[in-house]
Amino acid sequence: RFGEIDEEDQVGVVTGLAWTEVGGELLQIEGVVLPGKGKVTTTGKLGDVMQESISAATSYVRSRALSFGIKPTAFEKSDIHVHVPEGATPKDGPSAGVGMVTSIVSVLTQIPVRRDIAMTGEITLRGRVFPIGGLKEKLLAALRGGIKTVLIPKDNEKDLAEIPDNVKAGLEIVPVSTVDEVLARALTRPVEPIEWAPEAEAKPAAEVKAEIDALVTH
Amino acid sequence: RFGEIDEEDQVGVVTGLAWTEVGGELLQIEGVVLPGKGKVTTTGKLGDVMQESISAATSYVRSRALSFGIKPTAFEKSDIHVHVPEGATPKDGPSAGVGMVTSIVSVLTQIPVRRDIAMTGEITLRGRVFPIGGLKEKLLAALRGGIKTVLIPKDNEKDLAEIPDNVKAGLEIVPVSTVDEVLARALTRPVEPIEWAPEAEAKPAAEVKAEIDALVTH
Amino acid sequence: RFGEIDEEDQVGVVTGLAWTEVGGELLQIEGVVLPGKGKVTTTGKLGDVMQESISAATSYVRSRALSFGIKPTAFEKSDIHVHVPEGATPKDGPSAGVGMVTSIVSVLTQIPVRRDIAMTGEITLRGRVFPIGGLKEKLLAALRGGIKTVLIPKDNEKDLAEIPDNVKAGLEIVPVSTVDEVLARALTRPVEPIEWAPEAEAKPAAEVKAEIDALVTH
Amino acid sequence: RFGEIDEEDQVGVVTGLAWTEVGGELLQIEGVVLPGKGKVTTTGKLGDVMQESISAATSYVRSRALSFGIKPTAFEKSDIHVHVPEGATPKDGPSAGVGMVTSIVSVLTQIPVRRDIAMTGEITLRGRVFPIGGLKEKLLAALRGGIKTVLIPKDNEKDLAEIPDNVKAGLEIVPVSTVDEVLARALTRPVEPIEWAPEAEAKPAAEVKAEIDALVTH
Amino acid sequence: RFGEIDEEDQVGVVTGLAWTEVGGELLQIEGVVLPGKGKVTTTGKLGDVMQESISAATSYVRSRALSFGIKPTAFEKSDIHVHVPEGATPKDGPSAGVGMVTSIVSVLTQIPVRRDIAMTGEITLRGRVFPIGGLKEKLLAALRGGIKTVLIPKDNEKDLAEIPDNVKAGLEIVPVSTVDEVLARALTRPVEPIEWAPEAEAKPAAEVKAEIDALVTH
Amino acid sequence: RFGEIDEEDQVGVVTGLAWTEVGGELLQIEGVVLPGKGKVTTTGKLGDVMQESISAATSYVRSRALSFGIKPTAFEKSDIHVHVPEGATPKDGPSAGVGMVTSIVSVLTQIPVRRDIAMTGEITLRGRVFPIGGLKEKLLAALRGGIKTVLIPKDNEKDLAEIPDNVKAGLEIVPVSTVDEVLARALTRPVEPIEWAPEAEAKPAAEVKAEIDALVTH
Ligand SMILES: [Ca+2]
Ligand SMILES: [Ca+2]
Ligand SMILES: [Ca+2]
Ligand SMILES: [Ca+2]
Ligand SMILES: [Ca+2]
Ligand SMILES: [Ca+2]
Ligand SMILES: [Ca+2]
Ligand SMILES: [Ca+2]
Ligand SMILES: [Ca+2]
Ligand SMILES: [Ca+2]
Ligand SMILES: [Ca+2]
Ligand SMILES: [Ca+2]
Repeated sequence: RFGEIDEEDQVGVVTGLAWTEVGGELLQIEGVVLPGKGKVTTTGKLGDVMQESISAATSYVRSRALSFGIKPTAFEKSDIHVHVPEGATPKDGPSAGVGMVTSIVSVLTQIPVRRDIAMTGEITLRGRVFPIGGLKEKLLAALRGGIKTVLIPKDNEKDLAEIPDNVKAGLEIVPVSTVDEVLARALTRPVEPIEWAPEAEAKPAAEVKAEIDALVTH
Repeated sequence: RFGEIDEEDQVGVVTGLAWTEVGGELLQIEGVVLPGKGKVTTTGKLGDVMQESISAATSYVRSRALSFGIKPTAFEKSDIHVHVPEGATPKDGPSAGVGMVTSIVSVLTQIPVRRDIAMTGEITLRGRVFPIGGLKEKLLAALRGGIKTVLIPKDNEKDLAEIPDNVKAGLEIVPVSTVDEVLARALTRPVEPIEWAPEAEAKPAAEVKAEIDALVTH
Repeated sequence: RFGEIDEEDQVGVVTGLAWTEVGGELLQIEGVVLPGKGKVTTTGKLGDVMQESISAATSYVRSRALSFGIKPTAFEKSDIHVHVPEGATPKDGPSAGVGMVTSIVSVLTQIPVRRDIAMTGEITLRGRVFPIGGLKEKLLAALRGGIKTVLIPKDNEKDLAEIPDNVKAGLEIVPVSTVDEVLARALTRPVEPIEWAPEAEAKPAAEVKAEIDALVTH
Repeated sequence: RFGEIDEEDQVGVVTGLAWTEVGGELLQIEGVVLPGKGKVTTTGKLGDVMQESISAATSYVRSRALSFGIKPTAFEKSDIHVHVPEGATPKDGPSAGVGMVTSIVSVLTQIPVRRDIAMTGEITLRGRVFPIGGLKEKLLAALRGGIKTVLIPKDNEKDLAEIPDNVKAGLEIVPVSTVDEVLARALTRPVEPIEWAPEAEAKPAAEVKAEIDALVTH
Repeated sequence: RFGEIDEEDQVGVVTGLAWTEVGGELLQIEGVVLPGKGKVTTTGKLGDVMQESISAATSYVRSRALSFGIKPTAFEKSDIHVHVPEGATPKDGPSAGVGMVTSIVSVLTQIPVRRDIAMTGEITLRGRVFPIGGLKEKLLAALRGGIKTVLIPKDNEKDLAEIPDNVKAGLEIVPVSTVDEVLARALTRPVEPIEWAPEAEAKPAAEVKAEIDALVTH
Repeated sequence: RFGEIDEEDQVGVVTGLAWTEVGGELLQIEGVVLPGKGKVTTTGKLGDVMQESISAATSYVRSRALSFGIKPTAFEKSDIHVHVPEGATPKDGPSAGVGMVTSIVSVLTQIPVRRDIAMTGEITLRGRVFPIGGLKEKLLAALRGGIKTVLIPKDNEKDLAEIPDNVKAGLEIVPVSTVDEVLARALTRPVEPIEWAPEAEAKPAAEVKAEIDALVTH
C-alpha cells in the first residue's frame, strides 16, 4: 500500500512528495475537522518547519475564507487535526505547504481531493507557491506510485530540463504559482465564494434581542 | 501475571504487543473516561510517537463518533486517561495505534474488549491500519501469554511466511486493514451508530428558552 | 524522627517504602485537599515516573469515586497537593503508587490512615497492584522503623523466600493484588459507597429553577 | 521570483533587507490580520531576537493606535500572523523591526505598502529607528532586486561613505529616525488619526443599558 | 546593610539562614500579597527545591487557613509574590521552608515578623519541621548579623554539641518541631483562629438571594 | 545617538547603566502601558535575572499602588511592556531594578522621567535599593553620555573613594536607599497618593443594582 495512491477521492487526504536521503517518496497528508474551539493539532513526527508550514496554511485559509466558501466562524467552532503517516518517520521542510493548504480547504469545504494528483511547493501567507528541492526524486516517486498529475512550483520549471524523458512522458507536470491554481487542479470541484454580513454574527446583539423577545411574551 | 491475559472482558482494557530488544511482550493498554472538559492524559513513560498515536486515535474517534454510537458532546464533557503499565518501562512507537483506538471506543461506548485478543498496527487519521515491525516476536509473546486471536495489519500478511508453523497453528491470526475491522473483532458486541441533530445542542437557544419559561410562570 | 513512624493515625499521611542505593527507607507521603479547581500539585523532587504514578492514582480514584464514597464533583471543586519529604532528595519509580492512591482516598474521605502500616506496589488505572523491586531492603527498613504491617504486591510473594526469618517474624506481611485490598487494610475504617443522581448536579437546570423561585416570590 | 519585487502594492507585504554570510538578500515580510482574540503568530524559522522585534512592533502599534487610525479594540478582536518566507531558512536579528511595524500598520489600516521600497532598521518601543549592520550588502541586494527606494536608519548615514557610487546612484536612499517617517514613505497613502471616547467601549455599562432598553420596550 | 537585620518588625519580611560554599549567610525573605487570582510568583534565582518549598508552604497555609485566622477565600482573591534578594545569587534547598511559611502567614494576616529572629528548617505539608544541614555556619552568620534568637529544627538539637560555646552564649537557640511553634515565636502577636460557615461563600446561592432581594424591593 | 541622552523628558523612558566586559554603557529602558488584562511582556534579549527584576518591580508597584497614585484596578485592565534596546545585545543582572520600577510608575501615572538622570541599583520587594557592581565604569559612561545626575545605591557610597575626581566633579552623584527616594528624584513631578474604597469596585453588587434598576422600570 505504501507508495501507492488511494482507491477513491477523499476529503482531506492529499498526496505530497517527500525527498529523503534514500530518494523521493509519496507522503499522505490527512486532515480532519472536528467540533472544537480553533485548536490545530499536528502529528506524525513533524519538524518545526513543517509545523510552521501548517500554521501558515491555516492562517492563509482563514484570511481567504470567504473566497473559498468557508464561513469565518468555522475556525472558532472547529478543531483541525493534520496527521502525516508513517508516525515513526521524522518529516520536515516547507515543501508540503501546498498539500497542507489543500487538505485544510478540503476538510472545511468537504470537497474531495483528486486521488491521482500529487503536489509539492512551499506556500506563503499570501498564497504564493515557492520553489522546492529534490524535484527529480519526487517525480520519480510519483511515477512509481501511480500518480497521473504532479503540481510543481512555477519557479522549479527550469529544473525540468534535468528530468529523464520517460518521467516527463509518464506524468502530467503542472507548474503553479498560486494556491488558487493548486486548488483549481486538486479539488474535485471548484470552491464557491460566499458573502458574509459581519453583523449577522454579532452575538451580544442577538442575545439582547432574544431576551427582548422572551420578555415581551409575558 | 505479566505476559498473561486478564480473567474477564473489561471496558477500556486492550492487549497490545510490544517489540523490545529482548523480544516481544504483551502490553496492557488501560483507558478510563472521567467527567471533564476534553483533556487527554497519557501515562506509562510513553515516548512522543506513542503519545501522537493516542492523539491521532482520539481525533479519529471524534471524527467518526456518530458511527461508533458516541455523542459528539461526549468529548467536551469528558477527560480521557490512557495508561500503559509498567510505569518504569519506556515505551514508544506507533504500533499500539489500533489498541489505543479500541480502548478509547470501548470506554466511550462502555462495550468491553475481548480479553483473549491481542492486536498490533499503526493507525491513521482515516482509520487505515499501517504495517508494523517485529511481527514474529510479537506473535511469540501472544502465544506465550495465552492469547487466542491476534489482529495484524493486512500489509504484514506477507511476513507470515517467516513465522514458525507451531505459532501459526496456536493462534488465530487475522489481517485487518481498517479500524472498523479491528472493532468488529475486538469488542464483545458491535458498535451501534446513532443520529444527531446538531440544533439539539445549540446551548444559547436552549438557555434563552429556559429564561422565557422561567419568566412566563409569574 | 526519620525512619520512624508517626505518633497517631492521620488523614492523608501514608508510609511508603523506598529503595535506594544505600538500602531501603521509609517514605512519608503527605496529601492535602484544598478548595480549588481540580489542580494536582506534586512536590518533593519527584521524577517523571513518580509524578505519572500520582496522575494515574488520581484518575483511578476519580473513576471509582462513588465506590469510595466520594462525590464526583469533589474533584472539580478541589485542588490536591501530594508532597514527599525530604525535599532535597530525588525520588522516582512507580512503587509508591499504592501509597499515592491511599493518600488521595484518605484526604477526599477524611478517613485516617493506619500509622503502623507501610506499603509498596505499582498501581494501574484499573486498580491492580503490580510487583516492585527491592523487597528485602524495603522490609528491613519497615522493621527498623517500627512498622507492624507491610502491604506488598501479590506478585512479589515469591520473593519472600529470600527474606531473612527474623524479618518475616517481626512483620505482618500482607500480599495484595488490588487497591480495594490496600484500602481495606490501610484506612482506619472502611470506605462507604454512595449513589449519585447525575441530574442532581445539572447546574444550568438548578440555576434556572432558582431564578424561577426568585421571580415567583414577588 | 526570489530577490525580485512584487508586481503590485499589497496590504501587509513589506520588503526587508537581510544580511547573511553569503551577502545581502531581499526579505519578504507578510502580515495578515484575522478575526481572533489578540494572538500574535510568527512563522518562518525566526530567531528569538526577530520574534521579540515583532512583539515590540506590535506593542508600539498598540500604544500609538489612535494616531495610526486604528481602533484600540482592533487588537483584542484580531489575531495577527507575520510570516517570513522562505520557511526553511533561519532568520534572526532586530533589523527587520521597521518592516514588521510597517506590515502590522498596513494590515490593521488596510493601506497597501509601496512595492518598490525596501527598508532596514531596528525599532524601539517609542518608535525610534536604531542602526543596523551590513548596510553595503543590503543596498547591493536592493539594487539587484529592482528596488527604487531604501529606508535606512539615520544613524547609518555615516556608513554611506563606504558605499560604491553606482549603488548610491541607482537607489534613492532615505535616512529615517522615527517610525512615523517610515510609514510616511512606505505606505501608499497617509494614516489618518482618529479619536476615541473610551467610555464608548465600556462594556458592562453598555450591556446594562441594552438590557434596560430591552426591558423598557414592553 | 547585608548580613544585618532590619530596623523594624515588618509584615512579610523574614530572616532565613543560608549555607553556601563560603559559609553561612543571612537570607532575607520578602513576601507581598496582591489583589489577584491565586497566582504564586517567586523571584531571586531560586532553584527547583526552594520553589517547591514555597509551593508546599502555600498549600500548608491554605490547608490550615482558619486556624491561622485567614479566610479560605483569601487565596483565590490574592496573588502572592515571594522574593529573596540578592537577585543575582542562585539559592536552593529546602531549609528556607519555615521562613517561607512564616512570610506567607504574615502577609495574609498582616501580623509583623520579629526582626531579631532568624530561622532555618524544612517544612512538610503537615507542618512538621525537618532537620537541615550547616547548622554551625548558619548560627555563626546569625551571631554576626546581630540576630538575638534562632529557631532550629528539633532534630538538629543533637548537632548543638559541636557549636562553639561563645556562639551558644550569644544566641537564644530554640529547637522547634512544628510550624505552630515557629509562628508562636516569630510573629509579633499570636494568630487568631476564625470560624467559617462554608455556606456563607456558596456564590450561586448568594447571587440568587441577591436577585430575590433586588426583585422584592419593587 | 547611542550613549547619549534623549532630547526631552518622556513617560516610561529611563536611562539605566549597564556594566559589560567592554566597560559601562547607557541602557535605555522603555515602558509602555496598553489596555489589557495584566500581562507583562519583556523584550530586548533580557536574561532571567533581569526578567525577575521586572517581575519584582511590577509586584512592588502593585503592592504600593495607592501611595503612587495608581488605582489598584489599573493592573488588571492593563498590559505592561518593558523593552531594552538594542535588541541583539544580551542583557542581564539585577542592577536595572530601580530603572524598571521608575519606568513602570511613570507609565502608570503618566509622569515623565527626567532625561538628564541615570540610575543603577537592585530593588527588593519592599522597595529597598541594594548595591551593584561596576560603579566606576557606569559613572564614566554616564559622564560620557551627557548625564547630569546619577542615582546610586547608598550601599555603594563607600566605592566612591575609588572614582576619579573629574568624574565626581562632572556628575551629581546621589546615594539612595529606597525606591521612594529614586522616584522623588527621577520623576518630573511628585507622585500623588490616592485613597480607594474597596467596595467601590465590587462588581457583583453593581450588577445586581443595575438589574434592579432595569426591572423596576416595568
Ligand atoms: Ca515509507
Ligand atoms: Ca517537505
Ligand atoms: Ca515486563
Ligand atoms: Ca509500539
Ligand atoms: Ca533520609
Ligand atoms: Ca518508588
Ligand atoms: Ca533565498
Ligand atoms: Ca535582521
Ligand atoms: Ca551577599
Ligand atoms: Ca535553603
Ligand atoms: Ca551599544
Ligand atoms: Ca544590570
